[in-house]
Amino acid sequence: MDLSEKTIENKNIYKGKIIELNLKTVELPNGKKAKREIVNHPGGVAVIAYKDKDTILIVEQFRKPLEQNLLEFPAGKIEKGEDPKVCGIRELEEETGYKAKKFNYLGKIVTSPGFCDEYIYIYKAEDLYKGNMGLEDEDEFINVKEFKIDKVKEMIKKGEIIDAKTISAFMME
Amino acid sequence: MDLSEKTIENKNIYKGKIIELNLKTVELPNGKKAKREIVNHPGGVAVIAYKDKDTILIVEQFRKPLEQNLLEFPAGKIEKGEDPKVCGIRELEEETGYKAKKFNYLGKIVTSPGFCDEYIYIYKAEDLYKGNMGLEDEDEFINVKEFKIDKVKEMIKKGEIIDAKTISAFMME
Repeated sequence: MDLSEKTIENKNIYKGKIIELNLKTVELPNGKKAKREIVNHPGGVAVIAYKDKDTILIVEQFRKPLEQNLLEFPAGKIEKGEDPKVCGIRELEEETGYKAKKFNYLGKIVTSPGFCDEYIYIYKAEDLYKGNMGLEDEDEFINVKEFKIDKVKEMIKKGEIIDAKTISAFMME
Repeated sequence: MDLSEKTIENKNIYKGKIIELNLKTVELPNGKKAKREIVNHPGGVAVIAYKDKDTILIVEQFRKPLEQNLLEFPAGKIEKGEDPKVCGIRELEEETGYKAKKFNYLGKIVTSPGFCDEYIYIYKAEDLYKGNMGLEDEDEFINVKEFKIDKVKEMIKKGEIIDAKTISAFMME
């Protein structure tokens, strides 16, 4: 069965700094019409960065939508026209101060396929060294932490790490 | 360091059937102001459903934001006031036709904490039996598939399964 939904009409609701909201009218496989609320996002990267063979970097930052601090892998949005790998290298340095001699692609995920087109590209960084700390995004406030891998897995099971891209990255190695 | 961002102003941009979009002005830890585009979502559930001890159910459905079919665990949105567990049991039956004798909570994740407040509650369903097929959501078009767990792990590594909630669920067992 062809499950696809053809777009009949698109109404732009909002074009913002980061996201865009569109309301699409689609034709369902049974010929009926339905509305789809769709958020367009530029996509992002997340980096599992190994300080040594069993220690990884985790950043703590306040996430306004959830009104709480979260523990996540270093990550960030892709700038317009930016290569995801370049974005990953940039975000790792901006958020943690580290560059990496090895920086390899692990795969991509989608975060909320029901309403959003965001992809996150996951990279593994190894052989870290201190980069140019002056690159930080001045309006980002971040605590950088180091954890043993076994501790991170335990924190996932205990619900102390709840971020889907961070949890997913472990399955992609 | 206190990383939190106080809300100074909130402007509602859109209130839809599923999501809401708000533009918040916040005060950063350094006293400067910034804008935050925030999507409010009712939250959802995802179910890792064991047909037998090494076979699980995967649903294939068209995801309009990505313009492609995705393979995901059975999942769905929480209705207003609905208990997440009740939602999980309902969605499993609507999407696959199965009920479960054992239905246990594994944990919750956040999907896009940078701009969205969506939580997904993850459940493990075991001892499946055929339920009332008449419950399906009439505007959902879904193919139900069965895969061995090892095959699913391989599909994640190969990029054939890219959905973050599906990948995350494996780390939470």
